[in-house]
Amino acid sequence: MMVKKIGIIGLGNVGSAVLESFSKYSSLIAQRTALKIKIVKVCDLKKNKERQARKFSLPFTANPQDLIGDPRIDIVVELIGGIEPARSLVIAALKQGKNIVTANKALLASKGKEIFSLAKARKRHIGFEACVCSAIPIIKSVSEGLLSCDVKKIYGILNGTTNHILYQMEKRKIDFSVALSGAQRKGLAEKKADLDIEGIDTLHKLCILSYLCYGIWPSLNKVYAEGISRISLLDILYARDLNYKIKLLAIAKKEKGFLDLRVHPTLVPTEHPLSQVPAAYNAVSFDTQPAGKLLFYGEGAGGLPTSSAVISDIVNIAAGRGPFLRREGKIKLKNIKDIKSRFYIRFMAQDKPGVLARISKILASLNISISSVTQKERKVGKFVPIIMLTHEAIEDSIRKALAQIDKLKCIKHPSQIMRIEDI
Amino acid sequence: MMVKKIGIIGLGNVGSAVLESFSKYSSLIAQRTALKIKIVKVCDLKKNKERQARKFSLPFTANPQDLIGDPRIDIVVELIGGIEPARSLVIAALKQGKNIVTANKALLASKGKEIFSLAKARKRHIGFEACVCSAIPIIKSVSEGLLSCDVKKIYGILNGTTNHILYQMEKRKIDFSVALSGAQRKGLAEKKADLDIEGIDTLHKLCILSYLCYGIWPSLNKVYAEGISRISLLDILYARDLNYKIKLLAIAKKEKGFLDLRVHPTLVPTEHPLSQVPAAYNAVSFDTQPAGKLLFYGEGAGGLPTSSAVISDIVNIAAGRGPFLRREGKIKLKNIKDIKSRFYIRFMAQDKPGVLARISKILASLNISISSVTQKERKVGKFVPIIMLTHEAIEDSIRKALAQIDKLKCIKHPSQIMRIEDI
Repeated sequence: MMVKKIGIIGLGNVGSAVLESFSKYSSLIAQRTALKIKIVKVCDLKKNKERQARKFSLPFTANPQDLIGDPRIDIVVELIGGIEPARSLVIAALKQGKNIVTANKALLASKGKEIFSLAKARKRHIGFEACVCSAIPIIKSVSEGLLSCDVKKIYGILNGTTNHILYQMEKRKIDFSVALSGAQRKGLAEKKADLDIEGIDTLHKLCILSYLCYGIWPSLNKVYAEGISRISLLDILYARDLNYKIKLLAIAKKEKGFLDLRVHPTLVPTEHPLSQVPAAYNAVSFDTQPAGKLLFYGEGAGGLPTSSAVISDIVNIAAGRGPFLRREGKIKLKNIKDIKSRFYIRFMAQDKPGVLARISKILASLNISISSVTQKERKVGKFVPIIMLTHEAIEDSIRKALAQIDKLKCIKHPSQIMRIEDI
Repeated sequence: MMVKKIGIIGLGNVGSAVLESFSKYSSLIAQRTALKIKIVKVCDLKKNKERQARKFSLPFTANPQDLIGDPRIDIVVELIGGIEPARSLVIAALKQGKNIVTANKALLASKGKEIFSLAKARKRHIGFEACVCSAIPIIKSVSEGLLSCDVKKIYGILNGTTNHILYQMEKRKIDFSVALSGAQRKGLAEKKADLDIEGIDTLHKLCILSYLCYGIWPSLNKVYAEGISRISLLDILYARDLNYKIKLLAIAKKEKGFLDLRVHPTLVPTEHPLSQVPAAYNAVSFDTQPAGKLLFYGEGAGGLPTSSAVISDIVNIAAGRGPFLRREGKIKLKNIKDIKSRFYIRFMAQDKPGVLARISKILASLNISISSVTQKERKVGKFVPIIMLTHEAIEDSIRKALAQIDKLKCIKHPSQIMRIEDI
């Protein structure tokens, strides 16, 4: 029987769950493979984590070099998160000839190019299943299951915290700030929740999907990312009346000569399964040839679900099976200003004759054509919401139109805009 | 560069699509792996399929032995379907030391034990991704992605034809026979559609999932399978009023000491994503530990989607990566009569005083408790539908109750029953 030895750095939420799942489900792993996986050392920078190690009778060190330098270890599992010292540790481990398993999406999104180049040069594997949608085997499904497929489009709900907040806002008819506090109380959002709320975590995962599907590591600052903090309950309810749900989507579209990557709140038709993803779940849909449309759905976070992905990586790499990675390619990223989309626009406009005419005139002058207008409230002379859906228009034109409209005295600026994807 | 040589037997819908996808997407495969896959021979029992081979400049034979006996070939791809001669060919190929890729669910469901035992003894791989949900990488996701997971429950829409029919019945308010004819005209159902309609194809796929998740090859005749031919539009509409959709589900539940496997039309709550799977799509949900709940959704049939799964198997096996199969295990199958479930029952009962009392008395005598009763129509003295939902009850008791109720003069037999899964 082949024995593979691993070391784990980081005994936080995910690290502890990996130890627990390994001990609890080792018989299941043994049912599927004759490999024997042995955890020979665990490490956390915080010395008090030693009791985690003791619980499973595992040797502990607070010095990662101790683990990376251990010649017995075949696979280093990095679960500390953040860029440094994670990056240095992963680089050092690769240089020591170790294979890597990581759940660190921020690290790969910003340093993936460097890390994967080094791994390739050293002929080592990087397992990163846990980086995107946690328990859902997305990386494996795309890189090995759909390996002959041309991925035309990706639409993903990749962040559980923001989906939970949007879901609660609609379900309980509460404002963003109330839903955020609720998520924080439940431990579903961190106190400093910007990474989730502003779409950065989703962006990180989109970058990894971009590498996986197109061989492209985009610069983080070249991809448009917009979060959900300015979404109001009003917009959620108006969208619902129009048969849409607002979801924070990661979007990738392969077009002639361009790759369109972006993260933003999006109106998704209620009949599309993505619109119905509840609570903190994740889901990704892929539009491919020849496999057609696929959708994967499951737990996007949490220690135990993530431990499933980490263990899958460990066992697969122990068996010599890293993901089949697409060779690095080149393709221009589309600028957000150049995209074509339908738009949802909410103006807060004075309820008096002539306002709609002025708005419409500006839109028409920029070649933006309106598909529907709704004004539900009537408060003569006061500011009331006007909801417009446009036909397909160029983002740049919409921005120019809004800049003009928001200067009108009869409009309370800023107007709200969101993109619609009629998936 | 490693060159792996394959031979393909069967140039029908799927076989032709595999040739087409191989030629169209070979550059994508080359982007992910340095392996070179070469189709060295193709075969069909029908000689006129030679023109398919000629289209791709491939050597053709109408004699499968010619292909199986070719010492250059590493992997034999069996795409002829049915039990014989597929079984003999697969067995012969394994004995010749070939690895196998197959899309033949009927073959594996009935002869899987024999075929996988032989493959194990000869240390050969069997790729069977295309057998369950075609393009969706279910086999890979479960056997490699969720390899540490304990699969508690599976609910699957595994047959596109029946889902299409049920979907059309509801959408267009048509009867089963009209929907079936429509599916046949569209080529979505065969002329002799029993295999799909009566749930046999779904049963085959459930047996494969049972092997995949539990290491059990059940005897086909030991698993309860009921199709959709007796579903009426009336039931679909009543179910909808009660916030359920009727779906043909494959169900697996691991219980203490028992495995509960069955295929039957099922009332699924409208808020569950499975209830919303449209048209000929497939979807499977898994309830696992530690990965939680997952759902996979995509094209369940069709040449091109299936070709994606076949090619994935070919490339993975060429790289020495067969699925991690669960070792064969033993567990008793639960008899359908012993299951506990909630039930939907539609009686056609005479609209006169005392009828409900008589039905209720019989149900109560068998310990069946009613959760709701609806009678929408009123036609005094005539037969009208009465819809009952029960609380959880033992199937055997329900059957006994119905046998008694259906003998009453005030009831037009047979009454309709369906199981409810409050997923």
